[in-house]
Amino acid sequence: MKFDLLATDLQTKARAGIITTDHGTIETPIFMPVGTKGSVKGVHMRELEQDVKAQIILGNTYHLYLKPGPDFMKEAGGLHQFIGWDKPILTDSGGYQVYSLAEHRKITEEGVWFKSYIDGSKHFFSPENVMDIQRAIGGDIIMAFDECTPYPCDYQYAKQSMEMTHRWLKRCCTRFDETAGLYNYTQSLFPIVQGSTYNDLRVQSAETIASFDRDANAIGGLSVGEPAEEMYAMTDLVCSILPKDKPRYLMGVGTPVNLLECIALGIDMFDCVMPTRNGRNGMLFTTEGTINIKNQKWEKDFSPLDKNLGAYVGIHHSKAYLRHLIMNDEILGGQIASLQNLTFYLWLMQEARQHIVDGDFREWKEKMVKKVGCRL
Amino acid sequence: MKFDLLATDLQTKARAGIITTDHGTIETPIFMPVGTKGSVKGVHMRELEQDVKAQIILGNTYHLYLKPGPDFMKEAGGLHQFIGWDKPILTDSGGYQVYSLAEHRKITEEGVWFKSYIDGSKHFFSPENVMDIQRAIGGDIIMAFDECTPYPCDYQYAKQSMEMTHRWLKRCCTRFDETAGLYNYTQSLFPIVQGSTYNDLRVQSAETIASFDRDANAIGGLSVGEPAEEMYAMTDLVCSILPKDKPRYLMGVGTPVNLLECIALGIDMFDCVMPTRNGRNGMLFTTEGTINIKNQKWEKDFSPLDKNLGAYVGIHHSKAYLRHLIMNDEILGGQIASLQNLTFYLWLMQEARQHIVDGDFREWKEKMVKKVGCRL
Repeated sequence: MKFDLLATDLQTKARAGIITTDHGTIETPIFMPVGTKGSVKGVHMRELEQDVKAQIILGNTYHLYLKPGPDFMKEAGGLHQFIGWDKPILTDSGGYQVYSLAEHRKITEEGVWFKSYIDGSKHFFSPENVMDIQRAIGGDIIMAFDECTPYPCDYQYAKQSMEMTHRWLKRCCTRFDETAGLYNYTQSLFPIVQGSTYNDLRVQSAETIASFDRDANAIGGLSVGEPAEEMYAMTDLVCSILPKDKPRYLMGVGTPVNLLECIALGIDMFDCVMPTRNGRNGMLFTTEGTINIKNQKWEKDFSPLDKNLGAYVGIHHSKAYLRHLIMNDEILGGQIASLQNLTFYLWLMQEARQHIVDGDFREWKEKMVKKVGCRL
Repeated sequence: MKFDLLATDLQTKARAGIITTDHGTIETPIFMPVGTKGSVKGVHMRELEQDVKAQIILGNTYHLYLKPGPDFMKEAGGLHQFIGWDKPILTDSGGYQVYSLAEHRKITEEGVWFKSYIDGSKHFFSPENVMDIQRAIGGDIIMAFDECTPYPCDYQYAKQSMEMTHRWLKRCCTRFDETAGLYNYTQSLFPIVQGSTYNDLRVQSAETIASFDRDANAIGGLSVGEPAEEMYAMTDLVCSILPKDKPRYLMGVGTPVNLLECIALGIDMFDCVMPTRNGRNGMLFTTEGTINIKNQKWEKDFSPLDKNLGAYVGIHHSKAYLRHLIMNDEILGGQIASLQNLTFYLWLMQEARQHIVDGDFREWKEKMVKKVGCRL
């Protein structure tokens, strides 16, 4: 994996770059649609490519490990081939889901015991086997196995957890470096900064993670319930330490406003289920602001969903039609909303990138934050 | 509406024709995807046009009457404009749903009282108001309000019901002819033959319906549980009476084999929820036969869903991937299966048409019935 920094904004810390992987390039800043079980919910692969213009998508190791499983993945020739997506893929480590989805999980120095959300069966994740599983899934980018602390988190727990995450990272790197990819392309391992909302822990973690000198660095443990201001403060602090010549990935973030603010702090990569999950529930992100399509006010609004975006669904369908579909639980409603929202997210990243290159990012960002932060 | 009969098969009663409406032409034999609430479930309008190559779709008056309602439809400028579909639309009369979905319905000579499946509210359908509702929805083709008898049905009830359906048809025609379409195009009213599975009633009904001399004729009350042989016998009998120079529409039919057999009996138009509903449940229609994708045998079958059809999803995705999606309740599974099935249905109609024109329909049909009737 290669990262070329093409432009750095002078008035903010925003950066425009390009990541090169064996499955093609990724223009940063980038948003990565989440394809939990090997499918971005409600969106065809062709639409991801042609409408959304996604350059990289995510898979969730926790879900793919449980079903269809790593042995299956090997037989399928890896996730790209299995799902029919030949651009880059990133897989998370399963850590986040183990903590958020699994009941009766037991965290030890060795790893984590947890019960499957599907059938209650018992499973174990360790830094080593999570590397092996991600080798089997075959993402171009794979994530270190970490503990994601909840918010709020007391200092002592946050510190101990962070230290264990650092020890786990060493084990991840060892296993990763002594194994090879199973398919005909290179994988990169991203380490993850933790440290909850404590400045000294975040500094310590950022320095430790940076010292591993991997291809890029990620920031975890944010967007877990803390106020946006705390998230921005931690992101800013960590970005000030992470090396400039490597991509920075802020995990699980966020709203369009979050993305714009964090780009300004120096983040290059984002992922979030919000555009698809909230879309299915009727939240629509448009170039004019955010819409709750279930509101009565849209019932007879026959104007296009978002005529400015240039996306098929935004031009072709009205707010009233989408509302009718969502209110009547029609599958197509979720499809249209997901397609609109993802297209909007990717468009926002491309616009941001262009303005970074053009040198007027800050002005544009301030205008856009007001616009996309607005509830219509 | 205009119907031109282009070719009649010499060895069967199959016909190839073309229907001209104000929203464009329909090449027959044709299959019409069902868009119950103004959406063909799981399929974008663009996909219906470009992948499925649908030439006409259905809306259900019962559902659209309850939500969003006829007054809303008028404000929306009719169904075409509301849903973003500018090719022909057919709406049924709501009769079938009143009998199959509504509890506590009460049938009188005047019309039918029924309770909404949504909120239990009381509603009344009469031949007159069903014409008004379909004027408001604005289908290019609208259906007469009839009673669809169940199977089995005793002779006396079937006879009385059929006679009432004929009286209702007269009222439908009167109302239809004394009103005008609300939008800038012409609507056609299709009457419906009833008579359950009784030869003499079917003959009587076909003669009566034909005597109304409308733009086309439909056959109802079949595919309601009777053996396929009875359905074919009734279809054959009715087709022998209905005029040759008008399209014949067999309502609610059916499997690919049903379609092929009924084309051979002289049917021109079909509709059925099977390709989408069964698709969402994992039944896949392919050029090689029918697949239940939930079967274990497809778990590791990484071959394309249907490489012969030329449809995007059939070439791009494997059986194993579709199985994974369907087994894990991923929305995309239903989308892929629906797209494959509808594309297959429309392809089958175009193939049939070409073979009718070429004069080798019977031979082809017999081969295809074996093939598409096969469970893989």
